[in-house]
Amino acid sequence: MDDRLEKQIAFILEIDKEKNIFRQTHLSGHGRNENDAEHAWHMAIMAYLLREYANEPVDIGRVMLMCLIHDVVEIDAGDTYAYDAEALATQKAREDAAKERIYALLPGDQGAELRAVFDEFEENKTPEARFAHAMDNLQPLLLNDSNGGADWRAHQVTAGQVYGRQNKTRQGSERIFELADDLIRKNIRLGNIRE
Amino acid sequence: MDDRLEKQIAFILEIDKEKNIFRQTHLSGHGRNENDAEHAWHMAIMAYLLREYANEPVDIGRVMLMCLIHDVVEIDAGDTYAYDAEALATQKAREDAAKERIYALLPGDQGAELRAVFDEFEENKTPEARFAHAMDNLQPLLLNDSNGGADWRAHQVTAGQVYGRQNKTRQGSERIFELADDLIRKNIRLGNIRE
Repeated sequence: MDDRLEKQIAFILEIDKEKNIFRQTHLSGHGRNENDAEHAWHMAIMAYLLREYANEPVDIGRVMLMCLIHDVVEIDAGDTYAYDAEALATQKAREDAAKERIYALLPGDQGAELRAVFDEFEENKTPEARFAHAMDNLQPLLLNDSNGGADWRAHQVTAGQVYGRQNKTRQGSERIFELADDLIRKNIRLGNIRE
Repeated sequence: MDDRLEKQIAFILEIDKEKNIFRQTHLSGHGRNENDAEHAWHMAIMAYLLREYANEPVDIGRVMLMCLIHDVVEIDAGDTYAYDAEALATQKAREDAAKERIYALLPGDQGAELRAVFDEFEENKTPEARFAHAMDNLQPLLLNDSNGGADWRAHQVTAGQVYGRQNKTRQGSERIFELADDLIRKNIRLGNIRE
């Protein structure tokens, strides 16, 4: 195998580990915890199907790639729960270190390219990054709502916390934010999210 | 929620079930069985990274979408093991019925579009479908090789069976076939694949 292909295959095998990084969200039907690879797969398909609701025109291929790779850093850094203030404080440093190690497995050009896609997602300034964030927020909200809000109840999540996160959704898609808002209001009314 | 968005969300929640469709392949590190959503996520990233080896130029966004949705039918039809002749005989009928039910959840235009992407994959005539098949074949081969060929040994798989499947790989990418061939020869030599 030549050096370039060898590096590509090393990266491909490395990211297999993302299937063992579990999130707080549970699968629909009150299933087990979801892992990062499943979450990324779901987000990428959602982005494709819901692209008509993006606030600005998006390069959908780039959004899908961003969705697929945005959590690769969690192989080293672990999943940071959206409402865990302590873990959130160290998240960037842990993920930056992971980014350097993992993307360095690829040939130089591809490592640089995927780091740039990841940074674009994190900086959240382009239409593509904003729409990918809307999907990152909507996906667990849909699953959690389908499970009667069990994850919010288990973590005693408040409306302020949920809206804090969903503000990013609005930057990517007003229409998807409306949907999220409807679901949040319903779950506040049902007592699943604390006022 | 308007009717169009309601249908899109219904489909998005339905495909969550793909995370519970388990394959014969095991995760690297002698892990648990892999599920279809994880497999599709892995294939889509592989396609992006390895696109330079496609025999013909490909629309990589379409290949990625094809990778992401090609196993949705298995929510109803179940996973058909690549070397299970009996199950293979009924696979098409089972998957066609599943295709009709599941894609009908989407708005008409999107249901038709995704059915067409799935059909294109199955017919395997376009450069995109051929390259997606190369990824579909390479992905479990890489995992299985990383596990010392345990899945081949468990199912007493023969070289003829493995090459039968990998012939499709060659149609998508001569270079990826060479890699697959190297891995297969190594595993025959080690006694993991029967002659």
